[in-house]
Amino acid sequence: MKASIISVGTELLFGQITNTNTVYLSGQLQLLGIDVLYHYTVGDNPERLRRMLRLAYEDCDLVITTGGLGPTQDDLTKEILTEELHDSPVLDRASLDAIEGFFKHFGRPMTENNKKQAYLPSRAVIFANANGTAPGFALEDGARIAICLPGPPREMKPMFENDARPFLAAKSQSAIYYKLLRTFGIGESALETALEDLIGAQTDPTLATYAKEGECSLRIASKRATEAEARAAVEEMERTVLARIGGYVFSDEDEDLAQVVARKLIEKDISFSCAESCTGGMFAAEMTEIPGISAVFERGIVAYGNRAKTEELGVSPELLEKHGAVSAECALAMARGLRERTDSRLAISVTGIAGPGGGTPEKPVGLTYIACAFDGEERVKELRMRGASRYRNRRHAVLSMLSVVLRMIDRYGNILQ
Amino acid sequence: MKASIISVGTELLFGQITNTNTVYLSGQLQLLGIDVLYHYTVGDNPERLRRMLRLAYEDCDLVITTGGLGPTQDDLTKEILTEELHDSPVLDRASLDAIEGFFKHFGRPMTENNKKQAYLPSRAVIFANANGTAPGFALEDGARIAICLPGPPREMKPMFENDARPFLAAKSQSAIYYKLLRTFGIGESALETALEDLIGAQTDPTLATYAKEGECSLRIASKRATEAEARAAVEEMERTVLARIGGYVFSDEDEDLAQVVARKLIEKDISFSCAESCTGGMFAAEMTEIPGISAVFERGIVAYGNRAKTEELGVSPELLEKHGAVSAECALAMARGLRERTDSRLAISVTGIAGPGGGTPEKPVGLTYIACAFDGEERVKELRMRGASRYRNRRHAVLSMLSVVLRMIDRYGNILQ
Repeated sequence: MKASIISVGTELLFGQITNTNTVYLSGQLQLLGIDVLYHYTVGDNPERLRRMLRLAYEDCDLVITTGGLGPTQDDLTKEILTEELHDSPVLDRASLDAIEGFFKHFGRPMTENNKKQAYLPSRAVIFANANGTAPGFALEDGARIAICLPGPPREMKPMFENDARPFLAAKSQSAIYYKLLRTFGIGESALETALEDLIGAQTDPTLATYAKEGECSLRIASKRATEAEARAAVEEMERTVLARIGGYVFSDEDEDLAQVVARKLIEKDISFSCAESCTGGMFAAEMTEIPGISAVFERGIVAYGNRAKTEELGVSPELLEKHGAVSAECALAMARGLRERTDSRLAISVTGIAGPGGGTPEKPVGLTYIACAFDGEERVKELRMRGASRYRNRRHAVLSMLSVVLRMIDRYGNILQ
Repeated sequence: MKASIISVGTELLFGQITNTNTVYLSGQLQLLGIDVLYHYTVGDNPERLRRMLRLAYEDCDLVITTGGLGPTQDDLTKEILTEELHDSPVLDRASLDAIEGFFKHFGRPMTENNKKQAYLPSRAVIFANANGTAPGFALEDGARIAICLPGPPREMKPMFENDARPFLAAKSQSAIYYKLLRTFGIGESALETALEDLIGAQTDPTLATYAKEGECSLRIASKRATEAEARAAVEEMERTVLARIGGYVFSDEDEDLAQVVARKLIEKDISFSCAESCTGGMFAAEMTEIPGISAVFERGIVAYGNRAKTEELGVSPELLEKHGAVSAECALAMARGLRERTDSRLAISVTGIAGPGGGTPEKPVGLTYIACAFDGEERVKELRMRGASRYRNRRHAVLSMLSVVLRMIDRYGNILQ
């Protein structure tokens, strides 16, 4: 199956918002084994939208639209699509009830034009909208398929996952199964080198690597006649891959490193605290983004200056004088001091030079020390990051802290266990 | 002038990367007074690219392409464009020298196919690439204009700014001037209401509002025969706007709220510390993202549990018992205690229920208190946020903290001063 994605909305052409729907849908369609040939963006203009639709169907069987399903006169995607696919709108009672319920729930008055959203093509398979008022739908006309989704990503994505994806999977007459292995501590090219022969020889399953902010992911995907076959092929390849790079894999369920660490700390009931210098609160902010973390997170200290390191963490002025604030000794004293003062079972610390300024020949920008004290055990890690980007150095330090915590609490075992 | 933007690259259709070039170019073209009618994305496929180009010129005078200028056989944007605009490629000596210099500088061997990048349309206005090997260009054929830019944003953006924008500005025979007023504490619809008559009557200058994560911006733009005229028109409108909503404007130079606050704290040499409960380090992380902040930032305490609030900030157990951790009293005690313990001139605190769980009928999710102690002065602010999104509630709390600090250190004066 070949597809075009049409994004509808004048605001996209004004450069006011970045189109994130298209990249999401493209990735999802690829996983379904559907080739995406074009992306189009068009404003709220019926004639241009009609032109795009006709173009798209010239060499594609499937068109997915996002946006233009709102209640106003400008929102015409549904109307144009219905006409082009030779259908006519009828009132869908269930959708009207849902829209009325939505307004009742939020205590807002429903205006007459919201009713427009409950008129849908008579032959459509309707997709209820759990997060807004506009229903989506699938409509077929001969060999042409249209999937019509709302524009806001928080409405579009759940609708795609719950309704549009199963609809398309049923059409594609083959099954896709995939796993995403998320790694840390190995670069994309090192990962590719380690798997070079597998990537070179791939037909099915396919392997693809993706790098993002210091992390690197590997997607193993298979398309077979049945899901069981696809799954078996992926799992066999996963075993081969894990035998080579398993030590770098922190999740095979598409969890963030912070999510994995938080989940394990909660599961194992390990109370923890953190002391941050160069990351300035980023580690604490990332951990506290996760609901439920308050069960184990004790406190965080952002000890930016030397005085704070001494007063809050008990790092002695002599140590700071002798080794400097950016040193393995200081990182260890910070973690040890924090753990003693808080009775947390685990304390993690970081001190470094984030840049762009502040580096010296002996202690260049990017030099960072991480220490972790967990029950009776202690560990220090040195990082030498090369870039001058303050944000990237800080972000990489946070990921390294998470990785150190994970290895400490998993006792250096296979981190997938 | 009417424009289409064509993004070329199979990786965009695979959903591997988000297209950020298009939103950037759309915004830039709008500022030049050029209407964008369509965005297209097409893979590295010559026939499809040719088809898109012909389509684009059916109702546009200007086509901007990004991507497909690499050295490989797949990269065909330049070749197709040259053919379609009735020109032929010639070796450009200056471009070849630049490419050779690029490889010499990085000590990498130059391959034969990199020479391909120095062949450019004979009539082209060539744009040198300061950040990569592929030159860009402008090419005209009768009324049709093409601007051809490389795909990587860090190559494309400087080339657009340095070369393509002046080229297009000269074509448009008018000058654009604009200002972006950034506000906090007023919603987009309230802002529109306050300026309703001005927005309704607009011809030039134009006014447009943009909402993003709790902030709202207003862009005032004018297109006149000369820049001086456009500037005068924008400044006159700015005075009218500031008379109405000046109290909400924190920057007229497109600075973030955190940047404005950090700059003022540094300029005024005000040492500060922060105590965070619900935001869990986000405020500290945001402030420490700004280089040079270490001159005034003392320390941050993430006091997540009650014990940390007592031990680190001196909040009495009796107060916590009587008023609870989420209370104006607790916020004030946190700020006061922190200021006393650190000798910082300013201490800011926050305590609240970020959600999604943890709310009660009396203290619902979103209820948050912010306190600030600055020299002899103290202030408490209550927020009642309605959404259940943990991230948004925390983010809004951080912006409110920044706004409170700004008003404290500017003594409630005009925050643009």
